[in-house]
Amino acid sequence: MILVNGAIHQHISVSDRGFQYGDGLFETIAVLNTCPVAFDRHLKRLKDGCKRLLIPFPGEEILLSEAQTLIAEQPTPAVLKIIITRGSGGRGYRQPDPINATRVLSLHPYPDYPISYQEHGITARFCETRLGLNPLLAGLKHLNRLEQVLARAEWNDGSIQEGLMLDINDQVIEGTMSNLFYIKSHTLYTPPLTLSGIAGIMRGIIIQLATHEGLSVIEQPTTKAELLVADELFVCNSIIGIWPIKKLDEHDHFRCGSVTQHLQTLLNHFRNEGNLNVF
Amino acid sequence: MILVNGAIHQHISVSDRGFQYGDGLFETIAVLNTCPVAFDRHLKRLKDGCKRLLIPFPGEEILLSEAQTLIAEQPTPAVLKIIITRGSGGRGYRQPDPINATRVLSLHPYPDYPISYQEHGITARFCETRLGLNPLLAGLKHLNRLEQVLARAEWNDGSIQEGLMLDINDQVIEGTMSNLFYIKSHTLYTPPLTLSGIAGIMRGIIIQLATHEGLSVIEQPTTKAELLVADELFVCNSIIGIWPIKKLDEHDHFRCGSVTQHLQTLLNHFRNEGNLNVF
Repeated sequence: MILVNGAIHQHISVSDRGFQYGDGLFETIAVLNTCPVAFDRHLKRLKDGCKRLLIPFPGEEILLSEAQTLIAEQPTPAVLKIIITRGSGGRGYRQPDPINATRVLSLHPYPDYPISYQEHGITARFCETRLGLNPLLAGLKHLNRLEQVLARAEWNDGSIQEGLMLDINDQVIEGTMSNLFYIKSHTLYTPPLTLSGIAGIMRGIIIQLATHEGLSVIEQPTTKAELLVADELFVCNSIIGIWPIKKLDEHDHFRCGSVTQHLQTLLNHFRNEGNLNVF
Repeated sequence: MILVNGAIHQHISVSDRGFQYGDGLFETIAVLNTCPVAFDRHLKRLKDGCKRLLIPFPGEEILLSEAQTLIAEQPTPAVLKIIITRGSGGRGYRQPDPINATRVLSLHPYPDYPISYQEHGITARFCETRLGLNPLLAGLKHLNRLEQVLARAEWNDGSIQEGLMLDINDQVIEGTMSNLFYIKSHTLYTPPLTLSGIAGIMRGIIIQLATHEGLSVIEQPTTKAELLVADELFVCNSIIGIWPIKKLDEHDHFRCGSVTQHLQTLLNHFRNEGNLNVF
């Protein structure tokens, strides 16, 4: 079931600026035990994104209410997707006045990833497709996602689960659909997202969980070479949780080590607690 | 009237990747005297863009046929918009296999810009919003257009007709909806579009027309300061043709000089000849 501005629809207007210009934002949220995980954080990111893009935020209440309607109709686990656009109207790029934002909520089956991806790790590759530099939009989960589409189109090999992307300055930034962490000498590192990339909700939670555990967490610009000498390596997002990387291109020396395992335990606990704030 | 994959529709599927990710391309084409101006060039750019984005090109014949259907229904002058997306399907960013591209053709009333914009020039401003650097997507008229939307949202003052955009390296690139040229010592300059910007059809035609007239045309990286000491300055696109800039922020010393006027005459002749290749 899909709700477009609260009504059951499969379609949106051709004139919607989400379609015309990618003029909007989205959230992808795990629904476990009928509960949207970290819903408050997703809504906060959406609200902050709307503020940055000058799109009126529809409000937490209506989004929660429509999410509940969808969840009541479909068994969980499921994936809830929320899209907010600037709606229709305006002349060319010029935004309409007033702006009537479009909101689209949809619920999808949870992907059937093998449990071994979490337990034993995945195989990843470096993508050729580079992320551009765009401080204005960096961090936002906006609808301009051609870079990720092109990066993901680079491989069809089913034995590879994720691709890591560098920016045009040769800095490793993130996965096509995930954020990236690595561990070196018991310190947790993750690339900064000031010039490109999406500031993931799980990334934020992992940083908080790790800090709370007394682990040092450093946002550090990272080259390919630096990444390859890490002790442990993992990617994360709201749907997969944490996937350790066991093999990256031809480099197969990575282990799902104790730090990654500990963070997995903490994150899985957080995710299964749903909306509860564990701090 | 709007044609979605050849049928009359006002809507597209929520799952269309144009809506989900801005995963597609578009063209905006002037229709004068029932003829889409420079249609062959627009189709070539669309075809080249599809190749770069790995989207199957629907074919010239079907686009021409559907454009003719629309034009027969509505008086001209009009604006023809063509959108091609990667269609629906795939898992997340991963593209579907096979890809069934979506094509949307729509015809809109010609904007009622005052003739004085062409004859006496416009007022422009420098935008605060910067273009990111993205060699992968530079030049393409793709659907990821948040930067232009944010730049255009900077002003509401009806006395300003266009905003010029710099990239994050302080290079002047283009207008929010137009390409930029300037004249200095009888030479025509335009910024290169290798790191950002859209390679406009009118831009290409103007370069050819000017070269054919024996004018030197140089693609040159340009700062704000360099632009401000130009003799003449103009923006162009498929709908406006050439608009001289008479005032840029507080700088009002620009004239619609002889070189701009001559290029306007040549371009207007080309545009009114429609599809005919004047070379």
